[in-house]
Amino acid sequence: MNMQAKTGRLIGVGTGPGDPELMTLKAVRALEEADVVAFFAKRGSNGNARGIVGPHARETWTELPLIYPVTTEIHKDSKDYREVIREFYEDSVHKVEKHLENGKTVAILSEGDPLFYGSYMHLHVRLADRWPTEVIPGVTAMSGCWSQTGTPIVQGDDILTVLPGTLSEFELTRRLADTDAAVIMKVGRNLPKIRKALQTTGMLDRAVYVERGTMANTSSVRLAEKADDEAPYFSIVLVPGWAEKR
Amino acid sequence: MNMQAKTGRLIGVGTGPGDPELMTLKAVRALEEADVVAFFAKRGSNGNARGIVGPHARETWTELPLIYPVTTEIHKDSKDYREVIREFYEDSVHKVEKHLENGKTVAILSEGDPLFYGSYMHLHVRLADRWPTEVIPGVTAMSGCWSQTGTPIVQGDDILTVLPGTLSEFELTRRLADTDAAVIMKVGRNLPKIRKALQTTGMLDRAVYVERGTMANTSSVRLAEKADDEAPYFSIVLVPGWAEKR
Ligand SMILES: C[S@@+](CC[C@H](N)C(=O)[O-])C[C@H]1O[C@@H](n2cnc3c(N)ncnc32)[C@H](O)[C@@H]1O
Ligand SMILES: C[S@@+](CC[C@H](N)C(=O)[O-])C[C@H]1O[C@@H](n2cnc3c(N)ncnc32)[C@H](O)[C@@H]1O
Repeated sequence: MNMQAKTGRLIGVGTGPGDPELMTLKAVRALEEADVVAFFAKRGSNGNARGIVGPHARETWTELPLIYPVTTEIHKDSKDYREVIREFYEDSVHKVEKHLENGKTVAILSEGDPLFYGSYMHLHVRLADRWPTEVIPGVTAMSGCWSQTGTPIVQGDDILTVLPGTLSEFELTRRLADTDAAVIMKVGRNLPKIRKALQTTGMLDRAVYVERGTMANTSSVRLAEKADDEAPYFSIVLVPGWAEKR
Repeated sequence: MNMQAKTGRLIGVGTGPGDPELMTLKAVRALEEADVVAFFAKRGSNGNARGIVGPHARETWTELPLIYPVTTEIHKDSKDYREVIREFYEDSVHKVEKHLENGKTVAILSEGDPLFYGSYMHLHVRLADRWPTEVIPGVTAMSGCWSQTGTPIVQGDDILTVLPGTLSEFELTRRLADTDAAVIMKVGRNLPKIRKALQTTGMLDRAVYVERGTMANTSSVRLAEKADDEAPYFSIVLVPGWAEKR
């Protein structure tokens, strides 16, 4: 190795939930220092994280979109699906690593906080042992959503349970019945199931539904008042605690 | 009311976990616009949140420290304690409201995220219905701590449980036994109890202890390797999920 060569450096950059002003000063600085900016996206779109950092984009960046494979034909629980996804992450690691080997600083964007249900994690676990790595935390989607709606989520000795909406109705119900406060992520097509679990546990009345939190086209409503069960990918359900104890 | 008068405005400002660079652009802007900056503090100290925003302090601010009453003589579970604390919050509301009535923009600082176990919440629930109020989310202490230590906390359909260390050993154990990942807040003098609960549930080996996360004098260690049970107020325990499923 050439002693003068710059060492590659990996930065996982949390972009926050949507509003570009909710980026941290540290994230902005990392984007100023980055040679290469990588981000996950679907074919035909630049993805949400890249959109959030738009106001800070630089002409000097090498952009590295990591395009999710089209998997609509494959069942999500199948071995094939897992194999395709695994190959996609391996391939993404390979692409990122090429730039690291050339001594570049590679920023990988992650909406919200990188290590909290973020795709970045799949690259992190494969690269962080091999390259100098820094993770810049971000404001999570849930923080963005409870702040926007002024929903005090937990206080004192409240317990908060974060539940992916992909769990079964039974599991959602069981968990909701045994917590002070809850956040339900990955709502989308799981909304009917989530609504039932909240009804069963008597929590529907205090549940708040937020879509595209802190983004320009956001909206929110008490879940009990939401007429339909349509929900976009970027949606969340908040069940505040504390109320009874104040 | 004089039609020309400025209307008072309340802003709950999340400062992030400690590193001033983890403030959001929006928080920095709010501090530029604020006439009055209020913060909770102990007598003889300006408090942590005020410290974090130090680099952004302005000469034109009116500073409003809200000094916690000294309660060392009173038992925390007693009626007296609750009464003293309630009076303190009422009195703080009164002080803030005087500035709002004078048409001022009052920023109340909150370390981490304001609506996530933050003292700000006690003022929010008493003022947000009466005055135009905005809450600016912040990077939570837990995000700061798992990012700093590169600890992937939750992925996929993992469940995350956030537990205050003030719970009983039984309750901590029961909750830990039934979750994929956990964050234990309010560690301090609760550390021996937390350690036992993690031992009972077989989770001690993967637990990470972080004190003063993202602050200048931070340190972290696998909890199993931490020799003593001393912990400062600003400490947290992380129990990562996902590991078994990767
Ligand atoms: C893969 S997870 C990413 C979470 C992200 N890393 C974070 O820190 O919040 C995606 C889920 O986060 C939630 N989400 C992300 N951004 C959101 C937003 N702006 N508003 C509401 N929900 C959002 C949705 O529930 C979505 O299904
Ligand atoms: C009253 S809560 C405030 C939480 C804060 N609002 C947040 O969003 O994280 C105080 C607890 O947060 C945790 N905490 C706050 N800042 C921390 C830091 N920098 N490092 C570790 N733990 C911290 C500690 O467990 C402490 O007992």
